Amino acid sequence: MPEPHFPSGRVLALCGGIGGAKLALGLYRAMPPEALTLVVNTGDDFRHFGLAVSPDIDTVTYALAGRANTQTGWGRGEESWRFMDAVRELGGEDWFGLGDTDLATKAVRTQWLAQGRRLSEATAMIARALGVGCAVQPATDDPIPTIVETDEGDLAFQHYFVRRRWQPAVRGLRYQGAADAALSPETARALADPELAAIVICPSNPWLSILPILAVPGLREALAASPAPVVAVAPLVGAQAIKGPLAKMMVELGMEPSLQNIADAYDGLLDVLIVDEADRHEAVSGPKIVAAPIVMHSLDDRIAVARAALAAARAERR
Amino acid sequence: MPEPHFPSGRVLALCGGIGGAKLALGLYRAMPPEALTLVVNTGDDFRHFGLAVSPDIDTVTYALAGRANTQTGWGRGEESWRFMDAVRELGGEDWFGLGDTDLATKAVRTQWLAQGRRLSEATAMIARALGVGCAVQPATDDPIPTIVETDEGDLAFQHYFVRRRWQPAVRGLRYQGAADAALSPETARALADPELAAIVICPSNPWLSILPILAVPGLREALAASPAPVVAVAPLVGAQAIKGPLAKMMVELGMEPSLQNIADAYDGLLDVLIVDEADRHEAVSGPKIVAAPIVMHSLDDRIAVARAALAAARAERR
Repeated sequence: MPEPHFPSGRVLALCGGIGGAKLALGLYRAMPPEALTLVVNTGDDFRHFGLAVSPDIDTVTYALAGRANTQTGWGRGEESWRFMDAVRELGGEDWFGLGDTDLATKAVRTQWLAQGRRLSEATAMIARALGVGCAVQPATDDPIPTIVETDEGDLAFQHYFVRRRWQPAVRGLRYQGAADAALSPETARALADPELAAIVICPSNPWLSILPILAVPGLREALAASPAPVVAVAPLVGAQAIKGPLAKMMVELGMEPSLQNIADAYDGLLDVLIVDEADRHEAVSGPKIVAAPIVMHSLDDRIAVARAALAAARAERR
Repeated sequence: MPEPHFPSGRVLALCGGIGGAKLALGLYRAMPPEALTLVVNTGDDFRHFGLAVSPDIDTVTYALAGRANTQTGWGRGEESWRFMDAVRELGGEDWFGLGDTDLATKAVRTQWLAQGRRLSEATAMIARALGVGCAVQPATDDPIPTIVETDEGDLAFQHYFVRRRWQPAVRGLRYQGAADAALSPETARALADPELAAIVICPSNPWLSILPILAVPGLREALAASPAPVVAVAPLVGAQAIKGPLAKMMVELGMEPSLQNIADAYDGLLDVLIVDEADRHEAVSGPKIVAAPIVMHSLDDRIAVARAALAAARAERR
């Protein structure tokens, strides 16, 4: 019998953003979904028009549900935009796109939170309603809004990322509220699970998507304490970001956009860093380096990268 | 030259609900719009999905803008419902209909309020953006949510009116917060205007639409102090409500659904009550009674009732 491509036991992945959602979908299709837990960044959550917007959670949920907008990478597929057109006519703010059906996700989340449910509960209810078969959850139920310190002053994350299209130069980042945030019971439980066989860090922007998760007290310690190996997939290929501001931001933060600096950002946490085959000869100290094709265009690409990550974790456990 | 159908000077009308919006549109078309001020009920305002919903203000605004949904009487015309379909799929609450374009009105209002604008300002901005040429405003910028005391307990207005389709028996009403509400500067100014020539009370449900406005401290006094005559159009024809729960509610509140009880609800405020020709022989003490056809189906009907109200006001001033 061929060896299965997933380790026996559970898999926990940290993710955020569009690159994160790609590998999340790969994992979801490469293994039994009920054994997968996705811990999703909430540093980019914000209130817009009074609605509780959790862009990364929604991007991952839509991707897994087969409802993603494959053109934009965010929002729902088969979307309509009559709400946005009407906002524009009224002279409202139109810099953050909210499709007519995507709005419903934000609206029910807002209502459930107002009724006293935790973000973890609202997230699980939405994922279940859309037919997602794995756990999708934040690291914390508390707000941890990322503040981007730029040459134009402090910007709330979406104002930096969407409104200003990541053009202001980044001087630093603050994960506001993170130091006082409580790890959610669901994520604490998933991290402590003795069946946990692999921890995957998706190829998301470390500073914008993963470090906000790691900033939640107890999370980094729980990852380090888990016997499961930590496998990251590099978010840079040939010193370039696949998409988004990562390479630009690293330069602005005073560092070369190198794999070494990615590994160092995780500060000793990684057992394995999967780099692209194009980068197989790059010298990186710290984690074990595994080379594989990591650029994900098709669904098959996503599944292949997921299998490479799971195989690397399995190899570490021996 | 034929006498104009509007009094010289300004007209202020109190309204709420679907019947109110009908006469508001009639007035808007029967006189120079810039001389008209509509003071609209906000007792049925509420937060839904986190959004600031002001149903009566929106119904009036859409009617004047030619954007009303003529089938439902509420919401916008040429509406789509993808948001509601998506809410339903997610297991969210679908008892309060919010069309895709109508949602935009609620969203921009919510954002403007969150940015520190007053409800009066947000209302004026929306009306202006939709091309409305008269003043549309609440009596107060403070929330004055109507609580309906029913045989099933206290219900927030929309839970009584929409969710329970006004089926619970009404035992009483409270205009919560009204005693502490401040008359808005815009409405105070409109009431004190020496050019004010007529005050019209639209054929709205007194208890649900007009008494919440009159409950704002200073408003009733300002109406009484104005030299302008107060002309109400009856919301009952042949002891029946044209639409909605008025007759049922009056019975539940322990009174006959009669024109006398409507006049008494306004407690000496009315100079004239315009009743339907069908009711011309009904004995009503207090206001002067003028009979006219007051059932409004077409736009011409609305304009005719408006002209009757303005003519009655003009006659009183002589």
